Amino acid sequence: MSEGRARLAAGHQRARILEAAITCFARSGFHGASMGEICAEAGMSAGALYRYFPSKEAIIAAIAEAERERHAAFFASLAEARDPVEALASIGVAALEAVLADPGRALLAETIAEATRNPGVRAMFERNAAEARAAVTDALRRGQAAGLVAPDLDVATACRVVMALGDGLCAHQAFGPPLDMGRMRPVLRALLLRFFRPPPGSAEA
Amino acid sequence: MSEGRARLAAGHQRARILEAAITCFARSGFHGASMGEICAEAGMSAGALYRYFPSKEAIIAAIAEAERERHAAFFASLAEARDPVEALASIGVAALEAVLADPGRALLAETIAEATRNPGVRAMFERNAAEARAAVTDALRRGQAAGLVAPDLDVATACRVVMALGDGLCAHQAFGPPLDMGRMRPVLRALLLRFFRPPPGSAEA
Repeated sequence: MSEGRARLAAGHQRARILEAAITCFARSGFHGASMGEICAEAGMSAGALYRYFPSKEAIIAAIAEAERERHAAFFASLAEARDPVEALASIGVAALEAVLADPGRALLAETIAEATRNPGVRAMFERNAAEARAAVTDALRRGQAAGLVAPDLDVATACRVVMALGDGLCAHQAFGPPLDMGRMRPVLRALLLRFFRPPPGSAEA
Repeated sequence: MSEGRARLAAGHQRARILEAAITCFARSGFHGASMGEICAEAGMSAGALYRYFPSKEAIIAAIAEAERERHAAFFASLAEARDPVEALASIGVAALEAVLADPGRALLAETIAEATRNPGVRAMFERNAAEARAAVTDALRRGQAAGLVAPDLDVATACRVVMALGDGLCAHQAFGPPLDMGRMRPVLRALLLRFFRPPPGSAEA
């Protein structure tokens, strides 16, 4: 096998293991899922699996890294957007929608629960969350400078509120009755525009 | 011992077990915490503990019931409030603040994670969530009838958004950097008022 083809095959094996691990973690929890259960789900021998991931923590780290790469595309669009509020209401809501449609979304609550007691997991996901906060806060500050965001809004705090909303919706999708995105989309759009825009009638409006 | 005193003592023992269980669940997860760990934390023999709670599920049911009783007071105030938006922005934010200050708050993420795979736990907490949704939705509909809530707002969907926000903030408090409630309070108030009120300049304003 050529080096290029070997790398492709290894990438495919890694993706297969991560998909199996997400299924097992969602079913049995991080604690409950054993490396053996993940091998069985992936249809792989323990020897083959350990060649790619020496531990459950290594698998969790790869899941955190995949989440980070998925978010990077959204943050790039946000950084380039002329109007960050419009970008949050359109690209941001679409990104949330993609996460809500992902069968791995149940893992978010599991991740947060695990992060409250496992410092290694906490550190991985806190790095992701800190990058997300920085991207959204920067965009909102630019929006304030351009008169597109309410001038008196505490953007660092508002950013945490909006991120908590996104995470809360992911948890509710896994837990409560299914969210109807057709109804959710205009409500979230109204919320973001009314929350962030300068009040109508102010100098900036 | 008189019957009244015996009942009081039993209530005290139950409260002591629930407090110990919350500590153990937050530390080790629902799966990870054993009845033995809960006995040790409560400083009680297994025989004494099983007299009050025959299983971990019975303990979780009692925690869900306690949550339900805590919420009942808030829903009663909301039902009596002349202005439901003001009630959400004042009593609602104060209730959230009390939950955020509660060391058991880490249990929320644990509960949601467990509910995604344990139908018994899911049923208990879905009943609580359904009661909460009904109370908030009713209050907002009254607000619409009184011209205090935007007439075109889809209140059932808006209610789920606001509840997801509350749960997301609880998860963030356990997970990310501590939330500064002094900064959070005015931001949440602005969000709720701008989201729910009729737009300024409309007939209802």
